[in-house]
Amino acid sequence: MPASFPLPVFHEGEPLYDQLYRHIAAAIQSGEVPPGAKLPSKRRLCALAGVSMSTVETAYSLLAAEGYVLAKPRSGYVAADLLPLAAHAAHDVPQPPAEPSKWKYDCSTSAVDVSAFPFSSWARITKEAVYENPRLLQPGHPQGDLPLRAALADLLAEYRGVKCSPEQIVVGAGADYLLSLLLQLLPEYREIALEDPGYPSAYAAALRHGKTPAPIPVDGEGMDPEALSASGARLAYVTPSHQFPLGVTMPAGRRSRLLHWAGAEDHYLIEDDYDSEFRYTSRPIPAMQGLDRAGRVVYMGTFSRSIAPAIRVAYMILPPALLERYRQTFAHTACTVSRFEQESLRRFLVRGLYGRHLRRTGNLYRKKNALFTEKLAEIPGVTLSGQDAGLHFLLTLPRLTEGELVGRAAAKSVRVSPLSRYCHGAEARPSTVVLGYAGLTEGELTEAAELLAEAWRP
Amino acid sequence: MPASFPLPVFHEGEPLYDQLYRHIAAAIQSGEVPPGAKLPSKRRLCALAGVSMSTVETAYSLLAAEGYVLAKPRSGYVAADLLPLAAHAAHDVPQPPAEPSKWKYDCSTSAVDVSAFPFSSWARITKEAVYENPRLLQPGHPQGDLPLRAALADLLAEYRGVKCSPEQIVVGAGADYLLSLLLQLLPEYREIALEDPGYPSAYAAALRHGKTPAPIPVDGEGMDPEALSASGARLAYVTPSHQFPLGVTMPAGRRSRLLHWAGAEDHYLIEDDYDSEFRYTSRPIPAMQGLDRAGRVVYMGTFSRSIAPAIRVAYMILPPALLERYRQTFAHTACTVSRFEQESLRRFLVRGLYGRHLRRTGNLYRKKNALFTEKLAEIPGVTLSGQDAGLHFLLTLPRLTEGELVGRAAAKSVRVSPLSRYCHGAEARPSTVVLGYAGLTEGELTEAAELLAEAWRP
Repeated sequence: MPASFPLPVFHEGEPLYDQLYRHIAAAIQSGEVPPGAKLPSKRRLCALAGVSMSTVETAYSLLAAEGYVLAKPRSGYVAADLLPLAAHAAHDVPQPPAEPSKWKYDCSTSAVDVSAFPFSSWARITKEAVYENPRLLQPGHPQGDLPLRAALADLLAEYRGVKCSPEQIVVGAGADYLLSLLLQLLPEYREIALEDPGYPSAYAAALRHGKTPAPIPVDGEGMDPEALSASGARLAYVTPSHQFPLGVTMPAGRRSRLLHWAGAEDHYLIEDDYDSEFRYTSRPIPAMQGLDRAGRVVYMGTFSRSIAPAIRVAYMILPPALLERYRQTFAHTACTVSRFEQESLRRFLVRGLYGRHLRRTGNLYRKKNALFTEKLAEIPGVTLSGQDAGLHFLLTLPRLTEGELVGRAAAKSVRVSPLSRYCHGAEARPSTVVLGYAGLTEGELTEAAELLAEAWRP
Repeated sequence: MPASFPLPVFHEGEPLYDQLYRHIAAAIQSGEVPPGAKLPSKRRLCALAGVSMSTVETAYSLLAAEGYVLAKPRSGYVAADLLPLAAHAAHDVPQPPAEPSKWKYDCSTSAVDVSAFPFSSWARITKEAVYENPRLLQPGHPQGDLPLRAALADLLAEYRGVKCSPEQIVVGAGADYLLSLLLQLLPEYREIALEDPGYPSAYAAALRHGKTPAPIPVDGEGMDPEALSASGARLAYVTPSHQFPLGVTMPAGRRSRLLHWAGAEDHYLIEDDYDSEFRYTSRPIPAMQGLDRAGRVVYMGTFSRSIAPAIRVAYMILPPALLERYRQTFAHTACTVSRFEQESLRRFLVRGLYGRHLRRTGNLYRKKNALFTEKLAEIPGVTLSGQDAGLHFLLTLPRLTEGELVGRAAAKSVRVSPLSRYCHGAEARPSTVVLGYAGLTEGELTEAAELLAEAWRP
């Protein structure tokens, strides 16, 4: 054990185990704790850091699960051999950080089920799109090719009640990319209201574009309109179909109130229609964009969850005033999606393959959702919420802390996400974790639920 | 003719015909000059605007060539019927602005020759990449998949003398996108030194990310290192292989001086290796990145010109210190290139198809370059420069103004670009235009050269 072991200065607002875990991980990454070095025993680390045993256990479980430390029989934990990044000279080139070791069951929220993906259709369509369209090699429209945008306008009108012309659509390589364009388009908006808890990438994007995030609490109906008005922000970002991470679906009344807010001069509402494709217990609520009479809603959506993460195609619909500004600001910025892929996707949409794929995956997810939530609900004391739509939900178990829920699951090699990770000022609902299930098979979900039941046994 | 015709307030630094053209185009776009309205005669507009006949003629030629006005026999010009963007209510949705009418010969610099593109190989590879790799549907590495990055590292070592490991490479959908990431990565750099004249997209990107462009003069060897030092900027962007738009190739001595500048604390040099693939009269000079001992060069390149604009794959190579920062800042930002397309490109590279394609297109461009420059050199008084590499060059004809060169070419339906369009403070070399030739066939280049010879006849 090193004579002085690197310890964090703890601060408010983030779980202690998370601060401890990240501090030690960084020390191993940087070489401050060299490969093979023995780490303090759990008991000793409790004393050194002045934290509880459960905090230390959670931190060590995470470090072990992500490959930063190795458990050696009878000698405790030692630091793994990660080649540090920064300590090398320019061309003595760094190795990549060790890939996180595979979790046995990864219940993070980013995976999707690709087992139903129609490979042979997609491969055939892709080949056709290349063969039949030599002209697609030349530069296309900066907003994306018009035939794809026309197909998107039809699709969104039918599925989501969106009202737009193809000319208002901007196609781009991922929702994060489009959000970045939008933030560049609105330099005079210094603040952006974001859901709290909310999507971390939106907070990160705001900061990278020099904007101040204004965290707005989310209640059982979504973003709180009074807190939004009080914030003074004129730009807000919401996920009304299935709020991330709480899973709330915003009811019509709340939508009206937010649209009313957006109707004020120079206000804009970004509607990220995340997870709108999958609903299990009720009919989908149409997009706010279709109700917007004032031209103040920017609608965003993506195919990375409804088709596959590999398909980097997202779209946003700009109201006319922003469209004009977009064309001036990004006149020379090429569309970031390959024209071949645009044409492949268009064929996938207009031939009805996308509709069929959505029905198949919707049925798959419905079954997985029912199976996993039923099994987890059997764990004594568990409450679930946000499971009526989308691909993740919340689990609350008051007799354990959040850190214990995450750490004990990690000790069984099941990855679940602490809700507090998504909080930015709001206090997290205690003893709550976020579970995604889309990437696991029904068999895996059954086993994961059994492991979690063991891990969280009273 | 409207009683009062919209006229610009002219300002310094941009050609008068360009200001006049853009002002009238905007007035037609906005509906201020309604569809069908008669425009002032050329003579009358000279008087109204207080400019010369050649300025008015150039502006009207551009307006006609881009479809803003129609020439009616015996009644002069009338405004075309473009549905305005902003004048409509939210869902009374705008039509797209009229597509610019096709030029007969477009000598702009963005086109490439795709006639040699190996369609059947690419279609087959693409189909294979989809079929054989179901795992590619799941999220990949945020920097791009490692196998593609390994192939890129090999390619760049061989072709450009670049020294890097695959871990330093970030793959993204286009050079503009990667430059945007880089500017977000360097928030403390408030200024960026840019070549003047230089690439307009770099200026636009700097402004969109809240940075102040510091225009640095370009001489016969590239960016002036003394002006760079004097500017106080700590971040600079250069195109040493074939400067845009002057076509200068930076010699080794100048490269050393810029690397010396970059060696100072906290300085970074962005080397955009634009147009490095095609050289006609001498061996390529290796990239500056390979000579950088201090870890201060960010290298960028793209396949949009060497393969096709449709292939939205570009790459940047980060020095270790920035790589670490990149991983912290963009930890959750997915790669913007479809994994299928990454895998297709990798196969294209490692099977030698890219090398073969480069040789074929290199020969094509060499022939086009020789043909076009020979024909143009026959026009009395013409001087050419920057034609030893890349896909564009400069043409100077002192007995005409720049506006006359552009306008008379437009009157023959040949599109050439005014050099002053790329100037940001530096005075443009007078009587000079930029010509691209990659997108035209040899027959078209012969005809375009003949039309230009007529247009610019003494």
